[in-house]
Amino acid sequence: MASGKMSRAEALECSGCSQACHVMLYSDTKSQLFGKTPIKHIVLMQMRFDGLLGFPGGMVKPSEETLEAGLSRELLEEIGIALPISVEDHVESCFAPASLPSFSSSRLILHFYVKKIEEELIREVEKAAASTASDHGLEVLGMVRVPLYTYRREAGLSYFLSHSFIGNARSQLVRSLLRLHLVAPDKLHEALAHALQMHARSAKDLQAALTYTEAQKRDF
Amino acid sequence: MASGKMSRAEALECSGCSQACHVMLYSDTKSQLFGKTPIKHIVLMQMRFDGLLGFPGGMVKPSEETLEAGLSRELLEEIGIALPISVEDHVESCFAPASLPSFSSSRLILHFYVKKIEEELIREVEKAAASTASDHGLEVLGMVRVPLYTYRREAGLSYFLSHSFIGNARSQLVRSLLRLHLVAPDKLHEALAHALQMHARSAKDLQAALTYTEAQKRDF
Repeated sequence: MASGKMSRAEALECSGCSQACHVMLYSDTKSQLFGKTPIKHIVLMQMRFDGLLGFPGGMVKPSEETLEAGLSRELLEEIGIALPISVEDHVESCFAPASLPSFSSSRLILHFYVKKIEEELIREVEKAAASTASDHGLEVLGMVRVPLYTYRREAGLSYFLSHSFIGNARSQLVRSLLRLHLVAPDKLHEALAHALQMHARSAKDLQAALTYTEAQKRDF
Repeated sequence: MASGKMSRAEALECSGCSQACHVMLYSDTKSQLFGKTPIKHIVLMQMRFDGLLGFPGGMVKPSEETLEAGLSRELLEEIGIALPISVEDHVESCFAPASLPSFSSSRLILHFYVKKIEEELIREVEKAAASTASDHGLEVLGMVRVPLYTYRREAGLSYFLSHSFIGNARSQLVRSLLRLHLVAPDKLHEALAHALQMHARSAKDLQAALTYTEAQKRDF
């Protein structure tokens, strides 16, 4: 789940590689769902132009900018605010998984950052992302908060984890939740087990939709 | 894919049933992805508190309000604007599928509406949803646009269709895209076939995450 890892410095030595930086922005919160389920933390992800879930960020140009300056530039485009990102926010660098969707022809290195901000800033980001951000409605189809709670046995985090993610975004989310102690290992494991069940149910639903459109295509 | 259908009037005769109304808001657009792929239409969905994708709306109280007034009330809470919905916007009513997640104990009837609005109003909705809407960050985790285009052979609509949806939301989306001629039947069928492939790849990724947290749980 963490193959092809390298240091930030090693990554920069590859002049023929494409380099992309993404960041997980999160905050604490005291708000409660339906006035009783503690939400505890807010984690931001986004619906991308390709229809997949991922973290804000994008391609950077190491010949023209530092990785962190490039990431800030991407954040300005995607969330409407040029949040400062520093080397201290860097978590890991690795090659993009070959088995998962990629839109780059050269070898792609993914740099991942995590930055804790205030809840008020999360709200400002969401508002700017939906109004002033230049990528809104284009490269970004919307910002979403990740539910870290479990509601009525299996809703919440587990259903969210059953969606489709770009590259290694799901594993970056899972490992960050553990590293930052935002979700306990046993709770996360249980959520993933339920996510697989939800995922299997979803396959049947998708198959039914496929059969339906097959008939519609014939009648067209 | 369309079992348990009934008329709006028949639905209202069931006094012991819970009633929920949802609406697909959409507009035309001239904007292009990366300046070359026509986006054509904007369709709004949302990330729900339970981690699933669905249409805006919620439970209504037929003893106190019309279905449409209840839906407008829900829209004010969820998207920050009380968009007027009329009987003419009604598309279909049916029992909620028993096989998919439900949070209601009584039998649930789902009413579905479709309303075309101006692109400018879509932008106002997204802005209000992320700022003034009372449900923001609680019952609603974010609004997202549905990509109806296909980018680089299989990204876009197909990846989006591979996510996890509440109740019959995915089939409502698929049938609405056909009924309103927003996507051609053969294109939609192809997107669903690619969605199933993406869904299968996602299962392996989820399984890897489960194995990873199993090890972390032991080391905890």
